[in-house]
Amino acid sequence: QIVAAVEGALSSGPLTGRHVIVTSGPTHEPIDPVRYIANRSSGAQGTAIAAALAGLGARVTFVSGPATVPPPNGVDVVQVETAQQMRDAVMAALPADAGVFAAAVADWRVANAAGRKMKKDGTGNPPALEFVENPDLLAEVSRLETDRPRLVVGFAAETNDVVAHATAKRDRKGCDWILANDVSEATGIMGGNENEVTLITAGGAETWPRMGKGDVARRLAERIAEGLS
Amino acid sequence: QIVAAVEGALSSGPLTGRHVIVTSGPTHEPIDPVRYIANRSSGAQGTAIAAALAGLGARVTFVSGPATVPPPNGVDVVQVETAQQMRDAVMAALPADAGVFAAAVADWRVANAAGRKMKKDGTGNPPALEFVENPDLLAEVSRLETDRPRLVVGFAAETNDVVAHATAKRDRKGCDWILANDVSEATGIMGGNENEVTLITAGGAETWPRMGKGDVARRLAERIAEGLS
Repeated sequence: QIVAAVEGALSSGPLTGRHVIVTSGPTHEPIDPVRYIANRSSGAQGTAIAAALAGLGARVTFVSGPATVPPPNGVDVVQVETAQQMRDAVMAALPADAGVFAAAVADWRVANAAGRKMKKDGTGNPPALEFVENPDLLAEVSRLETDRPRLVVGFAAETNDVVAHATAKRDRKGCDWILANDVSEATGIMGGNENEVTLITAGGAETWPRMGKGDVARRLAERIAEGLS
Repeated sequence: QIVAAVEGALSSGPLTGRHVIVTSGPTHEPIDPVRYIANRSSGAQGTAIAAALAGLGARVTFVSGPATVPPPNGVDVVQVETAQQMRDAVMAALPADAGVFAAAVADWRVANAAGRKMKKDGTGNPPALEFVENPDLLAEVSRLETDRPRLVVGFAAETNDVVAHATAKRDRKGCDWILANDVSEATGIMGGNENEVTLITAGGAETWPRMGKGDVARRLAERIAEGLS
C-alpha cells in the first residue's frame, strides 16, 4: 500500500515522457441483448501493470474491458466491451513507445448476434450460433509497418505446456515479449492475488518466483523501462 | 436505508414461520476453463426481494449465481455458478411455502465444454460448440407432485410484447405468478436501480408504476404474505 501510494505520487521516473498502452480485463461478446460470452479475467494483473508503469512516470492509456477490479488512478482510461472495440481503441491511442496486451480478448465472437432475446422454440433444439474469429490485436500491432511500438508485450494464459505454448505464441504473433502464466484451476491464479509467470523473450524463457500481482507488475514495469532506455 | 435497517431488525412479521426460496443473479455456463456464457443480470432485484421477504419475517434460502451485488443479510446464502447447480440447490432446499425464481438462468449450456483452453487451430475455423437445454427449474418446481411450494413466482425478462409473452410463460410453466419486465436497452432496467413490472396472476395482468427495485421487492413481499395467509 505504501509503495503504491509512493508510485502514485511519483511524477517523474525512468518512463517519464514515454507513452504506454495497456489493455486489461475480459471482453464480452454479445449473443443477444441479454446474453454474452465472457472469460474469467478480473483485470487485476493488467490494472497493476498500468499502475506500475504510471508509477515509473509513463503516460498510460489503459484500454479495459468490463473488469471486476476498478481502473488505477493516474492513467487515461478507455472503457470498452468487445474485442472489436478494444482493437479500435488501441489503434486510436497509437503511437506509443510500448504496448502491453494483458487483456483476455475473446478469440471468437458470435456472427449472428440477435437484436431480440432468443427464445426456446419448444422443439428442444438449441439456437445455432455461428462464430467468427475476432481481430488478432497482438499480431496486428506487432506487424504494423508504421507506428509499431518499439516494445510489444503479449500475454499467454495457458492451462498446460506453458513455456512451449507461449514460445510458439511469441513467434506466431511477432511480438517482442510474452508474459506467460498457468491459469489452470489448481494454481488459483485466475481471480487470485498472486501470479507465477514466465517471461519469454528472444533470449529464452525466464521463470519468476510466485509473487503478488503487484510485484509482477513492478518487475515487468522495470524491465520495460530498461527495454526502452 | 432506514426502512432496510428496520426490515433487517424485524424478527417477526406476516411471514414468520414461513420458508421462501429465492433464486437470483445470472448463471455462468462454462465453455472451457477460461470462457463461459453469461447473461446481464446484476442480481439486484432478486437480492432486494430476498431482503424484503426476510424483513417480513420469512426464513429465506437465497440461491444465487455469480451476481455483482452482494447477498443480503439475514438469509441463508447458497452460491452456485451453473443452471444445473442452481437446480440442485433449490431441490435440496425444499420444502418451502413459496419459491421466487428471480435468477436469469441460462436456457442453454455447452454440451461439449472442454477441459483444456480451446485454441485457434490456424485454419480460421471457429470451434464447434454444441448446446443443450438446461433444466427448466421454474417448470419443474411448478409441476412437483410432492413438495410443490404453495406459491411459485416466476420472472420474465422480455424485450418486446411483455404482457403477451409473460402470460404465455405463466401458462407454459405452470407457475402461479409471473413478474414480468421489459429489459430492452432503452429502459435502462438491466443493471439499473429502477424497475417497471407487470404482475401476471390467474386473474390477469397488473402493471405497477415504475419504482425503485427495493419498492418492487417490498410490494411483492407483501403480496406473497397475503397469498400465503
